[in-house]
Order: sequence, then C-alpha cells, then structure tokens
Amino acid sequence: MDYKHGGDIYTYKGMSDFSANINPFGPSQKVMDAVSASACQIGVYPDSRCKELRAALSRKEEVPGENLVFGNGAADLIFSLVFAEKPKKAVLTAPSFLEYAQALRAVGCEIIYHRLKEKEDFRLGEEYLETLNGDVDMIFLCSPDNPTGQEIEKGLLIKIIEKCQAHRIRLVLDECFYEFLEEQDHVLTPAEAMKTPWVFVLRAFTKMHAMPGLRLGYGICSDQALLERLAFVRQPWSVSIAAQEAGLAALEEVDRVKRTRSFVQAERSWMERRFQQMGVTIFPSAANYILLKSEYDLFGLLKAQNILIRDCSNYEGLDRGYYRVAVKTREENERLLKALEAIYRKEGAEEGGA
Amino acid sequence: MDYKHGGDIYTYKGMSDFSANINPFGPSQKVMDAVSASACQIGVYPDSRCKELRAALSRKEEVPGENLVFGNGAADLIFSLVFAEKPKKAVLTAPSFLEYAQALRAVGCEIIYHRLKEKEDFRLGEEYLETLNGDVDMIFLCSPDNPTGQEIEKGLLIKIIEKCQAHRIRLVLDECFYEFLEEQDHVLTPAEAMKTPWVFVLRAFTKMHAMPGLRLGYGICSDQALLERLAFVRQPWSVSIAAQEAGLAALEEVDRVKRTRSFVQAERSWMERRFQQMGVTIFPSAANYILLKSEYDLFGLLKAQNILIRDCSNYEGLDRGYYRVAVKTREENERLLKALEAIYRKEGAEEGGA
Repeated sequence: MDYKHGGDIYTYKGMSDFSANINPFGPSQKVMDAVSASACQIGVYPDSRCKELRAALSRKEEVPGENLVFGNGAADLIFSLVFAEKPKKAVLTAPSFLEYAQALRAVGCEIIYHRLKEKEDFRLGEEYLETLNGDVDMIFLCSPDNPTGQEIEKGLLIKIIEKCQAHRIRLVLDECFYEFLEEQDHVLTPAEAMKTPWVFVLRAFTKMHAMPGLRLGYGICSDQALLERLAFVRQPWSVSIAAQEAGLAALEEVDRVKRTRSFVQAERSWMERRFQQMGVTIFPSAANYILLKSEYDLFGLLKAQNILIRDCSNYEGLDRGYYRVAVKTREENERLLKALEAIYRKEGAEEGGA
Repeated sequence: MDYKHGGDIYTYKGMSDFSANINPFGPSQKVMDAVSASACQIGVYPDSRCKELRAALSRKEEVPGENLVFGNGAADLIFSLVFAEKPKKAVLTAPSFLEYAQALRAVGCEIIYHRLKEKEDFRLGEEYLETLNGDVDMIFLCSPDNPTGQEIEKGLLIKIIEKCQAHRIRLVLDECFYEFLEEQDHVLTPAEAMKTPWVFVLRAFTKMHAMPGLRLGYGICSDQALLERLAFVRQPWSVSIAAQEAGLAALEEVDRVKRTRSFVQAERSWMERRFQQMGVTIFPSAANYILLKSEYDLFGLLKAQNILIRDCSNYEGLDRGYYRVAVKTREENERLLKALEAIYRKEGAEEGGA
C-alpha cells in the first residue's frame, strides 16, 4: 500500500522535513531519557491498564481514570473505534485527516463527504448541521483541522454535539493539535466531554511532545459501554512500555508546552506575513502548520533544494496545488521562506518574460 | 475488561514471575542498547514500510521482503487478520491462546471448538481433519501450542494444510515459540510457506528475544492480496521506531538464540523430572513452559510465597487445576521447585493425616 502521509523521511533521506507537523523543538530531554531508561524493562509485558500513566493523565485532564483509553498512537484508536462501532454511514469533512476514511472503508461504511469551501478558508459552517440526520451513525471532526489548521467555532461545535445527541450519532472529535491553540478551551474540554457520552475526544502525545516514533494516543469518553466495546476489539498490550514511560515524562513538561505554544503562535504569524509578502496564498491557521496554495509545483521545486513539504493533492476535497508546511525553528523556517522567495522571484520573472 | 493473561506483574508486584513465557535470560544487551539509542529518534514517524528490518528479516527467513508484514506484537496481526478476512465460521483448538477467540468474536464470527484430549496430552490428532470442511473460513493453530507446549506433528500439519487448500480455508499458523523447539523445521518453514499462500505464518520477537514490552511480531505469507487487505484495515505506523531498532539488533543474536534453545531444552527436562518425582502431573512440552495439573490450589499457595504462575482455568477446554509455568534460570527454577516440593509434602501430609 502506498504511503500517503507526511514525514516520509525514509524515502526522502536527509531532507529538511516540513511535511510532518510536530513540535519544532523535538522531544524533550526528559522524554528521551525516559525512553532510554525504559530499555531495561522491555523484558516484561506492558501494563495493559497503563495504571501509572492513567493516573497521571487523569490528574492533568481532570477526568476519572476510567474515562481514559490509550492507543498505539491516535490512529490505532481511530481504527479501534470504527471496528467497535461498525457504522453503516458516516459523514466526513473534506479535506481532513486521511485515516478516518481508511478506517471507515475497512468496515465497509458508506462515507458522505461534506466539502469545506476554499472561499471560506475551509472553515466548518452552519450548513454542516444539515448533513446530520438519523441515517448517520458516526462523524469525525478535527479541531484544529488537518491540513487546514482551522478551529471549529465553539458555538457551532455545541450545536453539532446537540444534534448528534438528538440523532444518536457517535462524534469522534480529534483534538490531536489542541495544545497548539491559543485558547485551549476552544475545543471540547475534558470536563465538557464528561457530560456528552456520545462524544469521543481523541488526543495524542505525538504532536506537542514530538514522539510520533513511539506511538501514544488517548481518548476521553464518559460512555463506559463504548470503552468496553473498544477493549473487546483490540489486544490488551497495544501501548509499549517505552511509550508509557515517555508519556509519564511528557506530562511533567507543563512549561515546555506553554513555551512551545507561544513560540508557534508568534512564529506562524511571522511566517504568514512573509508568505503573503511573496504572493503565496495561505489559509489562516490556528495550529502548528499552514496550508498554502500555489500555481507552482512547490513540492518538486523545494525537493530540488532538499526541503520536504506535504503535497496535499491526495486529500479528498483538494486538488493539485495545495501544500502543507510545518512551523519549525526560526533557522529552518528562514531557509524555507528564502527558498520559496527565490522560487516566486524566478517563476514570476519567467512568467513575466514569457 | 479483565486482564486474562500471564505476566501481570503490575497487579502482583515484586513477585517472581513464572506466568509469562519469555526467554529466561531476558533481552540481550545489544537489544537494550538499540532501544536506548533509539530514544533520540522518537521525534520522527516510524518507517511505515520497516525497510531496514524487512531487509534483515528477509535475509534471515530467506523469503522475499514483500512477503513479510510487521505488527505491534503478534496480537496486533491476529486482530488485523480477522478484520481483513471477516470470517463467518472458524475452528479453534481448545485449549489454545485466548486472543484468537477474542479477535474472532470482535467480527461476530461463529467459533467451533475442537477439544484436545487430556489423555492424549492435548496433542492434535488426525480427527481434527474432520472438522475442516467447506463451511469453515478460517482456522488458527499454534505450534508449539500455548499453554500445552505441544508440537503439531509435521505429517498431520501437511494434511491440514492440504485440506485447507481444498476447502479454501485461511490457516493462521502461530509459530511464536518455534525458536524454542529442538527441531526448527518441525513447524512450517518460511520456504514451505512460500508455496502455500492460504497459510499465514505468525512469528514474533517477543518470546525468544524477550521484548514483550516493546511489541514486535511479524507474518510470513505469499498471498499478496491478503497482505494488501491487511494494509487496508490498519494504520501505517503500527511498529514503533524503538521496536524496529530492537528487531534489527535481535536478528544479530544468532548464537544467543541457539544457546537459549539448548539451555531451555535441558532445563525443561530437568524440571519435568523434578515435577514427576514430587507427584505433580505434567504434560510433555516442546517449548519454554510446562503445563501442570494439580489437586492443590498452586496459584494461591505459590502466590503466598511470592511466586506468580499462570492459572489456566480461564482457557476454553481447561477447568480449575491447570497451571502453566515458564522455564526460567536455574536459580529461579530451583526456588519454584522447592516451594512446590514443600507444598506437596505439607498438603500430602495433611491429606494423609485427615
């Protein structure tokens, strides 16, 4: 099966990777030390209940530990949720994260696409509510969304949640990037999720704690019956000891998360201005990545300069000409921006001269 | 969901663990070093194609890399296989590994149990062939079996494979303990599996390389269509970077595997004699664990002495009174045997006196 995602540094070796949207500072020393120290523990099975990690995360999210579920990355939970629920009909927004559709297709679920409009910056609008009716079993929403970086406006989110309750629709709300948001309570908070058992909030250590290589995602849900069905369709040892130890260490990095968030917010604004100055079309983002639109083959042109970006043409709802770039460190961002400026000067000049 | 397996050192803290059946010498230094070194790589996504590990395992197993598939432990592949095949009817032997039934139930598959006979030491016999007919979609077999330690006789295995071909039955052959066997070609070899695309051979680094905490299993199968269906029902990043690096290091430990196998063979024979001398009923094993039968509550009596063994009463096909113990190091085995001898002396005396 072809690899369809960003971060494929194994095919594009040695390139500066803007295609994966991970904390620009990488994993913390504390987290890496925890992984290193876990090496001597690999001879035993992982704790299938993730007791220590569960207790620590329960304190952080301020929800009972029994309302948490851990997975081998958030993607593991996406598949498990779909296998547990076996929906017949689901609504997905387009564009959005590819794995929702893959998981739904794996159980033969019919997928209705709600196409987000470019002229509205791919923001979810009130008309989405009309797609939610009694025929729909499950929906996935992502806030901030991937690859667009758009938040779902909280008032609309509340209306969606109410409509899901009325029509008994399972809502999976992917908040894997929420820690990069300026306002953390723009998403559904864990306390709110405790009151809406038909909502499954999906989060991960992957993005903010920069540990995609280890795989650790989690869910928050107050529907105990769903959590039992989830346990029924998956192995007990999906989360490795290394991932559990890394997660525990990551939860101590409260200040680092705040610093990263502030940096990313400011750096993204700075990058957005530079993009606009050079004439690159951008869509305003609330996350640690920016969706660009260009008439030039930016993927190929940047690849020639050893810079890897995410070509978004394989997203449902996007054609050729859309690209996602991560917000990285100032030095790396400067390199990307200079390369893009050169491309726009050169291509612009050739067009002008043609 | 209740934990139903061995190795639950998180509930039974600080106990000597005979309940998990792992290489008695633990993970090798080389493997632990590889995990430690991988800590600085966790900031990137794992290679979804496991290219390096695939190439190294392809050389070891002498099969094309495209015929290998990797999972987050063998259990991950068991679930994925069932989700990919969605069998309606399956035959399981009883007793056998619990996860086959759990995975099959997750897709609503009807399970027919073929009960192995205690008087035949739970060995699979020719009458098993009669259960295989056109109604059956999938079977799981394990050799050497868990928890019994029984090998499937090669002549019978060939007959089963032929019958599966005739009736278009998918055979999942779990060889997770094959490296402990005295004769490695008593199981289906990778070369043989290349000629039988309806057979999926399941192996793992877990047991021989003592890395259950990291999760790394793999499959060998020459049915490319099945491997594509498998990729369709699972996330691309199921195997962490730490697991891939550990696997690569483990493949270099050729001599250690041989030494472990020799030790376990000799040690198991020695333990079996001691068990017989004290009057414990044992079933002859070809693997790194032994199934015991006792009239005494060995689980409770040994727990009181800080020794954890596997109470097998939750296996389909076994009642109370069956226990599995791992072959560990001489020092640990001596401790188990002395504790059991004391139990048998005491309980025997009380019975005699009653």
